[in-house]
Amino acid sequence: MTDPRLARLDAQVDFLKEADKLKSVLRATPLIDGSRRENSAEHSWHICLHAMVLADQAAPDVSIDRVIRMLLLHDIVEIDAGDAPIHGDVDHAAMAAKEAAAARRLFGLLPGDQGVDFLALWEEFEAAETPDAQFAKAIDRFQSPVINLENGGGSWVEYKVTLDQLDTRVGKPINRGAPGLWSWLRPRLADFFDKHMRKQAG
Amino acid sequence: MTDPRLARLDAQVDFLKEADKLKSVLRATPLIDGSRRENSAEHSWHICLHAMVLADQAAPDVSIDRVIRMLLLHDIVEIDAGDAPIHGDVDHAAMAAKEAAAARRLFGLLPGDQGVDFLALWEEFEAAETPDAQFAKAIDRFQSPVINLENGGGSWVEYKVTLDQLDTRVGKPINRGAPGLWSWLRPRLADFFDKHMRKQAG
Ligand SMILES: [Ca+2]
Repeated sequence: MTDPRLARLDAQVDFLKEADKLKSVLRATPLIDGSRRENSAEHSWHICLHAMVLADQAAPDVSIDRVIRMLLLHDIVEIDAGDAPIHGDVDHAAMAAKEAAAARRLFGLLPGDQGVDFLALWEEFEAAETPDAQFAKAIDRFQSPVINLENGGGSWVEYKVTLDQLDTRVGKPINRGAPGLWSWLRPRLADFFDKHMRKQAG
Repeated sequence: MTDPRLARLDAQVDFLKEADKLKSVLRATPLIDGSRRENSAEHSWHICLHAMVLADQAAPDVSIDRVIRMLLLHDIVEIDAGDAPIHGDVDHAAMAAKEAAAARRLFGLLPGDQGVDFLALWEEFEAAETPDAQFAKAIDRFQSPVINLENGGGSWVEYKVTLDQLDTRVGKPINRGAPGLWSWLRPRLADFFDKHMRKQAG
């Protein structure tokens, strides 16, 4: 008979080995130094660090530790489903179905109780209805524009993004979960688009 | 006069932009698929996920959320000091001095109160005296051997590592903070070295 505690650890390590593949999923956004595109694993680290540093931008009922756990998990589905660039031409219903299947397969590698917990945390993030999930979403949306401002527009140039589109795709979720971050970011975006992205809009 | 809340956010964003550089610090360990070397940012994400998944391997007085915060921060000093491979020929006193200076500079970018907190958490990790820090260190040491077992020895081959050296450099810290992980890992290491690393030892 297998020791159930050892079988549990085997399953946990299998999940952690599978998770290594997130390091090879590339996002639309470059690194700040422009040397290459960001991958979803290092992105996940960076936004967890954002949540920790920007904690005082959250509503008082937000648990930053739960937000960090959500953000550690939130992109793992991309191992199967790939990254859907926020400014890309994506079939959102098809993508949601693909991600839900990915979540079932990947979190299904874990011991049963833990798989259920992780799946619930991922679904809470996706639904964006709780204060924790809304702050997590705001943080996730805040990081890429800051990077793009630093390197000449980054993915905005490639995807021909307008300021109006940013107000909807980025502004709404940031403003909902972390209004102070949107107050900080919005004038910087307006200034950048005014100075550097005019040609594109015209 | 500058609004002090805005100055605070400026400093926080400056720190987060500087942290982006951790994505360009390469470690000795490859990815599991062997395609390239791992960087310290994606490594940090991966071990935070390890801490979350392997929480039941921690002593009862360990706070996993504090461990995750420690692990989010623990490698940031490498932006200035570089990665010191565990099996490399490193002057430990010189490296510790370099890392302490890096911690002062990098955490010094944050608002004062937050910089003090982050520095204290990093120092607690380094000192490895509290239960949280000892579990964090164990998790940090556990991930690379699992990767090396998956890809033909990885950095052990390059650094001509022996099983005795692993018992000291990896076994001791893992066994101190997470003895169940060492019980799982040790027979797998012995088996691997017996089968694949004999030539190297002789
Ligand atoms: Ca994302």
